[in-house]
Amino acid sequence: MPELRKDPIIDRWVIISTERGKRPVDFEEKEEERKGGFCPFCTGNEDKTPPEIMAIRDEGTKPNTPGWSLRVVSNKFPALVVEGDLDRQGEGMYDKMNGVGAHEVIIETPDHDKTLTDLPLDKITDVMRAYRHRIADLKKDVRFRFVMLFKNQGSIAGASLEHSHSQLIALPEVPVAVIRELNGARRHYAFKERCVFCDIVTEELRVRERLVCENPQFIAVAPYAPRFPFETWIIPREHLPRYEESPEEVYESLAQILGELLRRLNSALRNPPYNYIIHTTPFNDPRQEDVGHFYHWHIEVIPRLTKVAGFEWGSGFYINPTPPEQAASFLREVEL
Amino acid sequence: MPELRKDPIIDRWVIISTERGKRPVDFEEKEEERKGGFCPFCTGNEDKTPPEIMAIRDEGTKPNTPGWSLRVVSNKFPALVVEGDLDRQGEGMYDKMNGVGAHEVIIETPDHDKTLTDLPLDKITDVMRAYRHRIADLKKDVRFRFVMLFKNQGSIAGASLEHSHSQLIALPEVPVAVIRELNGARRHYAFKERCVFCDIVTEELRVRERLVCENPQFIAVAPYAPRFPFETWIIPREHLPRYEESPEEVYESLAQILGELLRRLNSALRNPPYNYIIHTTPFNDPRQEDVGHFYHWHIEVIPRLTKVAGFEWGSGFYINPTPPEQAASFLREVEL
Repeated sequence: MPELRKDPIIDRWVIISTERGKRPVDFEEKEEERKGGFCPFCTGNEDKTPPEIMAIRDEGTKPNTPGWSLRVVSNKFPALVVEGDLDRQGEGMYDKMNGVGAHEVIIETPDHDKTLTDLPLDKITDVMRAYRHRIADLKKDVRFRFVMLFKNQGSIAGASLEHSHSQLIALPEVPVAVIRELNGARRHYAFKERCVFCDIVTEELRVRERLVCENPQFIAVAPYAPRFPFETWIIPREHLPRYEESPEEVYESLAQILGELLRRLNSALRNPPYNYIIHTTPFNDPRQEDVGHFYHWHIEVIPRLTKVAGFEWGSGFYINPTPPEQAASFLREVEL
Repeated sequence: MPELRKDPIIDRWVIISTERGKRPVDFEEKEEERKGGFCPFCTGNEDKTPPEIMAIRDEGTKPNTPGWSLRVVSNKFPALVVEGDLDRQGEGMYDKMNGVGAHEVIIETPDHDKTLTDLPLDKITDVMRAYRHRIADLKKDVRFRFVMLFKNQGSIAGASLEHSHSQLIALPEVPVAVIRELNGARRHYAFKERCVFCDIVTEELRVRERLVCENPQFIAVAPYAPRFPFETWIIPREHLPRYEESPEEVYESLAQILGELLRRLNSALRNPPYNYIIHTTPFNDPRQEDVGHFYHWHIEVIPRLTKVAGFEWGSGFYINPTPPEQAASFLREVEL
């Protein structure tokens, strides 16, 4: 079973694959086998994935057969395993627990040649609703505290299969990036009695120079201090703490603005590899009971344009060659 | 002038290049021009770099001419500029200051074809002492609070010039990765009245399974919860808060263990690209006056073996395919 281990200095949990650890030679293998070959996510190959957890299908079609437009399955090579207890333990001075969690794949379309941005609005909306559905379902499991929903588009962005898909990992601990935001948002609230994300929305709508696009429910904005060129956040205008508890109309509106933002990035940067990740409120965590007042879900979209000068991992210090005001201006003015 | 901007949610400062911001097309340029071409770091090309700040030279040779074995110069394309006041300002709800700092290059050898590990012990010791010298010099400037010393080896690790070199960036703010360690170390000290790094040294020498190599002053160890496969930390055995104030004999001992560790990584992983970064105690910061009791300098070495599945940047959550016990065992047993 994989292990979750905690760094003894900072609050960072790491998943360690203990079963079949990669040896030095394993890192030399090429990863290019996938192109043009067999694809387990295509229609007709439903029996090559683990059984479906949910699907949107034509009436009368059976699970794990063709006739679907969206499918959610377990990851065939999961980073965490769904069975078992957490079994929190000390190991010498350190802390660990069993690598219990869920790792699922959201196959966004049966069509191998379509990307998320090629889909019509109602199909992108289905993807956004599938995210909601899976989070709502997984949080019933009291072992879990967070569902991390993310998409890697393109091999450089970490996608190991070409067929358009998103992933989720349900975790027994909250990822540090979210903890840091929670702590910062809590501090802001203690000082101002306002949500920092609500303040950002107000400020960005006032100055407008970092705004990329907007609709009645959302803004897409280059953050004031972005780590990466063309990094863009999608933030609900209204104070919504939990992705999965947003009002019904929000998901179509999100599909609209996410689709538009990605098309703008594709046009300006010629279909760059990208990642996006949803930051939302944790659950089942007694330390985070009050969080609904001051935390506000949002999506971070990161095009992968620059080689990571790796010292950034050791320092958390980023040098961004494109000011967000310029990035937003390029993205606003691009032809769609 | 570049700007330092602060993320309004978390304590992260980012350098924004405002002068010649990269436009979308700039990211499509290839970076492979450097191979085999002109090298400004080679002997004979001293006039192609900014003037030298320090050098180790043959007696009787003049600055900025041949005859050196190590040279420190300003970066020709600095991320920060050395002249000017910080001028801390609000901008709407946000915080910024001028991008004041130093950005220097430590050219480790005049020989284009040598890497750091090819150098004899005394020359690697010179490099370690040059780091000390530059930190000690830069901290006299009260505008600065931290000197980040790092090395990018190989293009994948972010090196834009092939000729072996390290870099330093003197910063008016402490990088978040160091702040988080300081906070964690402070918390550990409040609880145990011991330095967490001293505790790690004791624990790793007790269990030994994550130990890669050791000498009288240092251990090199795969950390308990590493983010990356074959990540290794070099930690002084003794409680030394500041790199630049370590006892004289420490620098040669560091050169020995760093050289050995890098040779072990080179042998096990066939000369992988890598980064290393020195984490040491900040200075000139009134909030960190008490830090000498509980913080302990160390070097993080990160071979760049895996594509970063980019969601890690959005989550701070890492999946490591090689348990540190296995990584340490491979590195211990490799032929040198």
